[in-house]
Amino acid sequence: MRLDHTHDASAKSWLEAANVNDTPFPLQNLPFGVFRRAGTVEGFRGGVALGDQVIDLGALTDAGAFDGLAAEAARACAQASLNAFFGMGPVAWRALRHALFALFKTRDESRRVGLEVDILEKCLIAQCDVEYCLPAQIGDYTDFYTSIDHARNIVKLIRPDGVVSPNFHWMPSAYHGRVSSIGLSGQRVRRPFGQRLTAGRQEPEVGACAKLDYELELGIFIGTGNEQGTRISVESAEEHVFGLCLLNDWSARDIQSWEAAPLGPFLAKNFATTLSPWIVTMEALAPFRAQWTRPESDPQPLPYLSSPETHASGAIDIQLEVALETGDTRRNGRAPTRLTHTSFRHQYWTVAQMVAHHTVGGCNLRSGDLLGSGTISGPTRAEAGALIELTEGGRSPIGLPNGETRSFLEDGDVVVMTGWCERPGYARIGFGENRGEVVPAKWA
Amino acid sequence: MRLDHTHDASAKSWLEAANVNDTPFPLQNLPFGVFRRAGTVEGFRGGVALGDQVIDLGALTDAGAFDGLAAEAARACAQASLNAFFGMGPVAWRALRHALFALFKTRDESRRVGLEVDILEKCLIAQCDVEYCLPAQIGDYTDFYTSIDHARNIVKLIRPDGVVSPNFHWMPSAYHGRVSSIGLSGQRVRRPFGQRLTAGRQEPEVGACAKLDYELELGIFIGTGNEQGTRISVESAEEHVFGLCLLNDWSARDIQSWEAAPLGPFLAKNFATTLSPWIVTMEALAPFRAQWTRPESDPQPLPYLSSPETHASGAIDIQLEVALETGDTRRNGRAPTRLTHTSFRHQYWTVAQMVAHHTVGGCNLRSGDLLGSGTISGPTRAEAGALIELTEGGRSPIGLPNGETRSFLEDGDVVVMTGWCERPGYARIGFGENRGEVVPAKWA
Repeated sequence: MRLDHTHDASAKSWLEAANVNDTPFPLQNLPFGVFRRAGTVEGFRGGVALGDQVIDLGALTDAGAFDGLAAEAARACAQASLNAFFGMGPVAWRALRHALFALFKTRDESRRVGLEVDILEKCLIAQCDVEYCLPAQIGDYTDFYTSIDHARNIVKLIRPDGVVSPNFHWMPSAYHGRVSSIGLSGQRVRRPFGQRLTAGRQEPEVGACAKLDYELELGIFIGTGNEQGTRISVESAEEHVFGLCLLNDWSARDIQSWEAAPLGPFLAKNFATTLSPWIVTMEALAPFRAQWTRPESDPQPLPYLSSPETHASGAIDIQLEVALETGDTRRNGRAPTRLTHTSFRHQYWTVAQMVAHHTVGGCNLRSGDLLGSGTISGPTRAEAGALIELTEGGRSPIGLPNGETRSFLEDGDVVVMTGWCERPGYARIGFGENRGEVVPAKWA
Repeated sequence: MRLDHTHDASAKSWLEAANVNDTPFPLQNLPFGVFRRAGTVEGFRGGVALGDQVIDLGALTDAGAFDGLAAEAARACAQASLNAFFGMGPVAWRALRHALFALFKTRDESRRVGLEVDILEKCLIAQCDVEYCLPAQIGDYTDFYTSIDHARNIVKLIRPDGVVSPNFHWMPSAYHGRVSSIGLSGQRVRRPFGQRLTAGRQEPEVGACAKLDYELELGIFIGTGNEQGTRISVESAEEHVFGLCLLNDWSARDIQSWEAAPLGPFLAKNFATTLSPWIVTMEALAPFRAQWTRPESDPQPLPYLSSPETHASGAIDIQLEVALETGDTRRNGRAPTRLTHTSFRHQYWTVAQMVAHHTVGGCNLRSGDLLGSGTISGPTRAEAGALIELTEGGRSPIGLPNGETRSFLEDGDVVVMTGWCERPGYARIGFGENRGEVVPAKWA
């Protein structure tokens, strides 16, 4: 994806909050979400984050701020889900992002398009005054398994030889996940009940999950899909991707280890999945693309998973952090404890490869479908994207600065995921926050 | 579920086609679907099958045929999907079925409710003149694995000891399936491409599936769901189930065996799933309930999967057949070859147990969600619900009467599934037909 003036770090907005050093949402980002004023019964509608504000796209459209394709795209965004907008494709996505960039860069642009002075301010709502809903009606959710370091960390816990399944090196493996239980940052996640087999026992028992975990992932929203029976080539795959958000794939490890053979994870994962509200567009991420490489000794990808662009710039350097708030840190006003810091650039398979593989057999993707990247772990222990890896299956609890320890999550824990891209000469592009709180099990 | 006058075999309709001996759709059935006149741009809307006709519920509502809860339910059915009707719950479902039973049993009923003479005929459309769409917007599709005979047949092919995974005896195992590729009877299923590892080779290759198979299943439509974080008890589970249809879980065995570890089936299953258009209500199936038993030596179900009613009448005796039409049988006007005849009553886990297990960890089901029963195989070879079982993994091709043989499906093959219930003293309740045709692979 080419870089253009919307990636220029020197571009500033007339909205000062967008120019603050540590904002996740400068003028160069412009991520999309769906919101309404908190506590109202207004309709949810599409918006774009800028600084500490939400740009109300419906209001801006009504004000006549756009014309041509950007106007059509903004009208599609005024709905309660972004599916129709996604379905318009990358030319429309770009038209709207570029129009927003122009309008919020200089006041001259609003005068040029004949807008009343100050009408743009009237289309802004402070982020602290809004609530969000899922940005799209998600038709299907697929969770991948694409981090070699995650795979190695997990396999070491369950197989003495520590050898990753041979297909891992040949395909971005995946399974279908649960759509109904996907929620948004702020989700309260009830600790699930389920069957688990205690070591040394012959018979399983039912109980509240004792090994509740998070998984640090990125969510990938499909923009445009494909007809059933056709495939999306790896070369064109990224044109089908709208953008990315943060995803917490909550996992019940004790339930998982008993249920997972032979059909894969089911109840261990389907009780909740949490997304951050803002989708960062692939266009905004363009400056942070990186070379995708794998060891020479590993199998090179089959032709349908390989293209010059995949190799040259298939990776994306997205910095990711997981932090833990506990009841104690909250009560005492302590900072959350950082558990993980890694980057998406280590991933063994790229976003384009996930899309190409998903459709190679003719499975149809639809606008608004969600892919999970799979747990994102880097090569060192501090870069592991789940507690099961950080604590070696719970055997080595981690210590928190306040003296608490954790093998797995406890009731009242809040998992906070953040993500951002930075590179000298470019504006910092943030994902905002993905928070989820563990609430106690209840046999209801 | 109690039996009442709507199960009375002696009840006849004034619509003679509903009284024909071999109709799948007598007055006692009244299955629900969504249809429109074929080749038109009419809106799809809910209908009920009776004999060779479709009762247009929207037209019947407009004519004032219903009142009270039945009228509300019929209005909900006039939409392009039955989700809202499903969400009304079993009292509403029953009210509408009973009102239809009365209206089509005797002409007196239409006079009683003040309808014009012959208005009911105007609300009928011949089934041969309509086309169907999916009866509900399916939010999530979950495929179970609940036939012990199927599990044993499969395990024998892949494990020398032939021992079924120990969790099979403790829980109705399942995985999430693909919603986007679910189609209706008549679906043309393109043979998928995918990765497979040929025996003796070190590296996988990409090619058209060489081991394309069907799986005989029942589709289970969820009527009313549950809130996230709560569960549905096994005692109340059937009140949440609207009804059943025939389901073909197309499977690419060569792709499956290479991809399935450790996350379960993915591309091997997500290219297509085919449903029959009519949903037979749980109420219509009430006379065919059967005792659910398992060998004394097997583990008895954990309390959350056990109730007196599950044991007394958890099974359902639904006769199921798979037949194969080939290019040759079609060209020469030969009858399709019957491949399988079995019954759903052999299933190791019941519908109520599937629902209770699915929600035990708080996963929320929604109106219109679809569960697949998993392959339905009985204890003998002739009762196996998939070619991989009938042909021992392809090693023992089956002969067709016209001299052809099949290890797996060939291009042009049409898989025809049918189902029905019969029991002395009760009307025969049919499911109609589920047809799907294999079309050649295309690298498009």
